[in-house]
Amino acid sequence: MSAAYRFSVSIMPRDGILDPQGRAVEAALPELGAVNVHHVRVGRRVDLEVEAGTEAEAWTTVDRLAKELFANPLIESWQIESQPVTARMGPPK
Amino acid sequence: MSAAYRFSVSIMPRDGILDPQGRAVEAALPELGAVNVHHVRVGRRVDLEVEAGTEAEAWTTVDRLAKELFANPLIESWQIESQPVTARMGPPK
Repeated sequence: MSAAYRFSVSIMPRDGILDPQGRAVEAALPELGAVNVHHVRVGRRVDLEVEAGTEAEAWTTVDRLAKELFANPLIESWQIESQPVTARMGPPK
Repeated sequence: MSAAYRFSVSIMPRDGILDPQGRAVEAALPELGAVNVHHVRVGRRVDLEVEAGTEAEAWTTVDRLAKELFANPLIESWQIESQPVTARMGPPK
């Protein structure tokens, strides 16, 4: 029997790597009166569902996709979080 | 006295809203042998630090920025998470 496991992957620019989107946000902050906001970094978030026999097996799939498809390991780091299946976005199957 | 509070904001396409990036990822999955992966949604993640007197005050600032700057409320939903300050990315001040 296989089950569906939900994950979120956050992909962020590595420390020291230029983050033009983060800089663009920072440049817009004074206009919004948010002068107390700093250290803005902008990355991506990928939510996905994996059918697998165990959560460990599903995690291995997500880890591989993060490295090979979602992130550029040279300039980005990523973090995988397991999510309750009830938090899945999209219509039920 | 003010303190620095860290937050992560996840901005995702709303249910039912077309997600071309998610579809592009799904289209690439068979080539990577990941036929057991479904319901891919791609959004953004913004990490930031807010100087404020209290965490509640900092949260109010993040909530306003999420609505006014990070997300398009018509087509995107967002979720704010408080983060330990030690998890801050970037060089120490």
